[in-house]
Amino acid sequence: MSSSIGTLFRVTTFGESHGAGVGVVIDGCPPMLELSPGDIQVELDRRRPGQSRIVTQRKESDTAEILSGVFDGKTLGSPICILVRNENQRSDDYSEMKEKYRPSHADFAYDQKYGTRAWPGGGRASARETVGRVAAGAIAKKILHSVGVQVVAYVKRIQNIEANISALKVTPEMVESNIVRCPDQKAAVEMITLIESVRKEGNSVGGVIECVAWGVPAGWGEPIFDKLEADLAKAMLSIPATKGFEVGSGFAGTYLTGLEHNDEFVADSAGKVTTTTNNSGGIQGGISNGMPIQFRVAFKPTATVMRDQNTVTTSHENTVLQGKGRHDPCVLPRAVPIVEAMASLVLVDHYLRQLALSNRNQNLA
Amino acid sequence: MSSSIGTLFRVTTFGESHGAGVGVVIDGCPPMLELSPGDIQVELDRRRPGQSRIVTQRKESDTAEILSGVFDGKTLGSPICILVRNENQRSDDYSEMKEKYRPSHADFAYDQKYGTRAWPGGGRASARETVGRVAAGAIAKKILHSVGVQVVAYVKRIQNIEANISALKVTPEMVESNIVRCPDQKAAVEMITLIESVRKEGNSVGGVIECVAWGVPAGWGEPIFDKLEADLAKAMLSIPATKGFEVGSGFAGTYLTGLEHNDEFVADSAGKVTTTTNNSGGIQGGISNGMPIQFRVAFKPTATVMRDQNTVTTSHENTVLQGKGRHDPCVLPRAVPIVEAMASLVLVDHYLRQLALSNRNQNLA
Amino acid sequence: MSSSIGTLFRVTTFGESHGAGVGVVIDGCPPMLELSPGDIQVELDRRRPGQSRIVTQRKESDTAEILSGVFDGKTLGSPICILVRNENQRSDDYSEMKEKYRPSHADFAYDQKYGTRAWPGGGRASARETVGRVAAGAIAKKILHSVGVQVVAYVKRIQNIEANISALKVTPEMVESNIVRCPDQKAAVEMITLIESVRKEGNSVGGVIECVAWGVPAGWGEPIFDKLEADLAKAMLSIPATKGFEVGSGFAGTYLTGLEHNDEFVADSAGKVTTTTNNSGGIQGGISNGMPIQFRVAFKPTATVMRDQNTVTTSHENTVLQGKGRHDPCVLPRAVPIVEAMASLVLVDHYLRQLALSNRNQNLA
Amino acid sequence: MSSSIGTLFRVTTFGESHGAGVGVVIDGCPPMLELSPGDIQVELDRRRPGQSRIVTQRKESDTAEILSGVFDGKTLGSPICILVRNENQRSDDYSEMKEKYRPSHADFAYDQKYGTRAWPGGGRASARETVGRVAAGAIAKKILHSVGVQVVAYVKRIQNIEANISALKVTPEMVESNIVRCPDQKAAVEMITLIESVRKEGNSVGGVIECVAWGVPAGWGEPIFDKLEADLAKAMLSIPATKGFEVGSGFAGTYLTGLEHNDEFVADSAGKVTTTTNNSGGIQGGISNGMPIQFRVAFKPTATVMRDQNTVTTSHENTVLQGKGRHDPCVLPRAVPIVEAMASLVLVDHYLRQLALSNRNQNLA
Repeated sequence: MSSSIGTLFRVTTFGESHGAGVGVVIDGCPPMLELSPGDIQVELDRRRPGQSRIVTQRKESDTAEILSGVFDGKTLGSPICILVRNENQRSDDYSEMKEKYRPSHADFAYDQKYGTRAWPGGGRASARETVGRVAAGAIAKKILHSVGVQVVAYVKRIQNIEANISALKVTPEMVESNIVRCPDQKAAVEMITLIESVRKEGNSVGGVIECVAWGVPAGWGEPIFDKLEADLAKAMLSIPATKGFEVGSGFAGTYLTGLEHNDEFVADSAGKVTTTTNNSGGIQGGISNGMPIQFRVAFKPTATVMRDQNTVTTSHENTVLQGKGRHDPCVLPRAVPIVEAMASLVLVDHYLRQLALSNRNQNLA
Repeated sequence: MSSSIGTLFRVTTFGESHGAGVGVVIDGCPPMLELSPGDIQVELDRRRPGQSRIVTQRKESDTAEILSGVFDGKTLGSPICILVRNENQRSDDYSEMKEKYRPSHADFAYDQKYGTRAWPGGGRASARETVGRVAAGAIAKKILHSVGVQVVAYVKRIQNIEANISALKVTPEMVESNIVRCPDQKAAVEMITLIESVRKEGNSVGGVIECVAWGVPAGWGEPIFDKLEADLAKAMLSIPATKGFEVGSGFAGTYLTGLEHNDEFVADSAGKVTTTTNNSGGIQGGISNGMPIQFRVAFKPTATVMRDQNTVTTSHENTVLQGKGRHDPCVLPRAVPIVEAMASLVLVDHYLRQLALSNRNQNLA
Repeated sequence: MSSSIGTLFRVTTFGESHGAGVGVVIDGCPPMLELSPGDIQVELDRRRPGQSRIVTQRKESDTAEILSGVFDGKTLGSPICILVRNENQRSDDYSEMKEKYRPSHADFAYDQKYGTRAWPGGGRASARETVGRVAAGAIAKKILHSVGVQVVAYVKRIQNIEANISALKVTPEMVESNIVRCPDQKAAVEMITLIESVRKEGNSVGGVIECVAWGVPAGWGEPIFDKLEADLAKAMLSIPATKGFEVGSGFAGTYLTGLEHNDEFVADSAGKVTTTTNNSGGIQGGISNGMPIQFRVAFKPTATVMRDQNTVTTSHENTVLQGKGRHDPCVLPRAVPIVEAMASLVLVDHYLRQLALSNRNQNLA
Repeated sequence: MSSSIGTLFRVTTFGESHGAGVGVVIDGCPPMLELSPGDIQVELDRRRPGQSRIVTQRKESDTAEILSGVFDGKTLGSPICILVRNENQRSDDYSEMKEKYRPSHADFAYDQKYGTRAWPGGGRASARETVGRVAAGAIAKKILHSVGVQVVAYVKRIQNIEANISALKVTPEMVESNIVRCPDQKAAVEMITLIESVRKEGNSVGGVIECVAWGVPAGWGEPIFDKLEADLAKAMLSIPATKGFEVGSGFAGTYLTGLEHNDEFVADSAGKVTTTTNNSGGIQGGISNGMPIQFRVAFKPTATVMRDQNTVTTSHENTVLQGKGRHDPCVLPRAVPIVEAMASLVLVDHYLRQLALSNRNQNLA
């Protein structure tokens, strides 16, 4: 299992959905950063189950305890371990899962790979694992803020209801102004109605989250294999339920010609260079070019549904799985802080990598 | 710069487009694999410039020399270094690039990051760097074949001309049967016509490549951050000119409900488990489930065009760049072997990682 | 800070001596290994302060809690997080350390590197950090046992009192038969007397620990940079207070000629190959050769002494540091399980790496 | 096989002793460093066979070709590949090695691990592999020089002939003033006589190399597992024929008490902090403290001897190996630049890692 990501800002998550708890160790966080449990809690609360009527009603306070790496309210430069104890474990909801593989879940694949599986809940494959990511992302965000970078994600589309707004006009306040985290209030109302409707049917829906990183200076990202967009793609596809990633013009850009697609450079009177369009999504050759970094992530409809489905038993016999228990009819509202967290982890890692490069001519004296 | 990828099958490319040559070191290749220069050449020839009338006419034989790691026709288990000397260097074609940044190229970003740049050709950002990837991929393919895995990519769409064929029916022979590498012969003819037309205009087009990996057993891929789809996404977005990645149902799957999208399991009389649909694209929870692995990659239209464009100088003054020289009006025909190579590198790495896990109960005696 | 070690069996420790606790995350532990808190506690108890009259009298129960990665008494293949809460924190003992750098401690270097430091106790530089290593090592030992490998370390020398016994005759029972962990009972008595004597003087002593790994089959270790002895050397020099490492004949072997030093191979009637001597220490070319792996580690005398010493303040003014509080007059008795743990971590990582190589010709079906 | 080392300054060597050549790829070298083949050649010449009458008479010019990463005489920030073609291959000298394992060589272990082996010469286990290390080290040295760090190694002892000089008085000129690379001219003469004598007997000798790194500022090195001394230990034990490593007081320091061993801090009138002794060897808690870094490495007597030895065949039958061909009766004179190279690789990597940390409060604008 690979539960770590990052080169200099190295994040390792741990924990199963129905074990003692979930958490994260962050190694490589710079010292002297002010950090309190509240800094982390605010992001965990955005991810928390039970936060609104359109998400799962599982009750978890998701209270963060900082076990290490912070002294007198500031980071030490040593590993920061954050633990969130599990609270609301109704394992009986999951008894059927011991014997039957849930369609489009990871149960079957885990059994094939490991020969074992924590069957109550999704175990390690549960979205609960993302608690650690969001906690680490909260720290990454603080570092990024200190150098003028802000990461904002929002729900762009739920099934076929799409926000009618430019990503470049979306503010964090607009995102948090409604429970579906869509900055277009009219679309938000429709999305909420849709999600409530599919929940009543025991069904689920997916959609698209868009994310913009503001203020990233030119020069972040490592050419060839750790290109900025490559690391973002990996980070996004590592989030449960994701099926696609596109940066800048994305798949739609493939319908343009080169002359239409190219981003022309222009210099202002002060010599500052920008591009007149941003089909590149702020990244060229794997390196940020100073324009906003912009990408989208596709989330499939939640695999957990409250309806009967054909499947097989762990003994490989055909059977029917009954839908019951609690579920997220749509993961996107809770996935917004996860997308922001993963983007922040990638960015802060490349920020630190670039520091090593850009400052090499200065002695450490 | 990060020019390495992989955990156990570790690939490092090197070389600029206009230096002495390009190449690759593969560390972690298992021993006793039969390997000849011809095994590598066949894949390099699929990537080679000048291979047909719809690609760049730059003349390079791209002859592979194996410098290490092979003895008596078999791999030793030691690093394999493969070198391809550069031959056709017409640096004068590029003299304008010394002073002017090409729109949607990496020139500006490299200068911002490194404070320097190999201006003749794209230097390290040139697609010529992919020679090393394709050479390494040829070896990965041989290992995969030995365990029954086959990777097949093809051109699915050029701008708005789309192949009318299921990816699951595409054979390598069909892909190689025409110069655009599209298995739908009718669409292929149209694509070729389109590419020739945009070239005459000095313009360019992009499109989508689809790839299927057959025969991957259940169990490959590492949950959480090195999910199989996450590593594939990173590998694909590390290829020059890519703007998007989607696996299985991808972005289109976000319009379905959970009940429509879920892949029901079914067991045959021998207890073999498959799914009735494959919206998961062969991967669940980051782990292969035994179904074909299927994904698509978006390629933007080539940034190099033979027309005047507005841009800035290296002194950040506005100017006009004249289009001249040789270019690929469409990179997709040559990108097919690159997609296959990168997919193979990811798969063979996860194959080796899974060996460490699946065989742990056997003593090494 | 780099708090992780290992390629496939990846260990990350966290925690400061006077924070909430210390612990470890192990990622890459194979699934289906029986594991209970007791398996870990038995090793932690060997490292625990207050275990005898010759070690520090700080009282800590060092109780291990397994937070993740284990289900129904067996490992899942997911990250195992183990937490040990800190209990006995008398920070007032350390108030002087806030303002004065202790000689031969890490205080000054940490301040220079990070610009901050957890001054109560050694913070991250405290030997308390090794709790996580020993916990992870307990798991590594269980895996190694399952493939017939046993790791045994013992105190070979305290200052100038040396055990008169061949390392190859030392059993775990002999090591645990006295509080100094020296298998030569006569020397052990002298060592204990010496340690008690230097403690009364407020002084400290060091010495040498020797370690043997039995049953390692030929073939573990990765040539060139991750040679088995290189990884062992790194692991040992990462233990606090170590100053040297030697394998096989070590420094003494440099006085021999090649003809004296070479280990001649000999085959028995069954074709089993051994060497008549073992100056190689069980490793040739970085790879185990099937003979016992044997190495020694030098530990300096404890830096903490109960006597006045000249030093500087954090404002870089000369001052005198008073010795007070509790200390280990000799770290070696408690370091024996740490050496075994670190050796086991290195060996199990190479075991898993070799599995990926040795079994490659088998399909995963 | 693990042929890579380093986190940010990442070095990968390749090549067998009797293949096409040997070389190295350096990824992560900062841009804008002046670099010519001559910079590398000067170090390769110090390692070259045939350089004097006391080393092997194998004739190799060891001419370095820079294949990539350098443009207009300066580094680009992209991977630097350096190739040295093999020239003097007298494989017949080695025909016996195809069937018989040389005592204390890697032949047997390689066969056990890989099931194959490049039997002419040592293949990958040959000291010829260190060509790549020395080439990379030459670049590392140039970077270190630019920040005021100088690395000097010398032969301290050959068998029982020891230089009578403090390491802190040794200059590069003194080291290069004789063919054995011992700065004590009187001892050097005796060493040369000894080496010539053992060569005539077909025998070999080992000894100790000492190394000092001057000018390393306080703050380099990563606590816990990548401690500076831990990474140095690994780097040294990765050099062929090494059996031990000690830093500062080393094994001898274990005979002192804490009060004798502790390095007291003292501040001068300008507030500059040093220590009155340097038993720490310039490293405390894994971090440099501003004092000279000092360590020693044990080299065993060369395994290749020109005398008959008992051994086994590849079929595991007892036999006798005849000594013939060319050999180094003592590797230490040629190992001096290798020790310097490996030390430099470790230091430059930690320098870059520290840059990322120390400069984080500066924006990249």
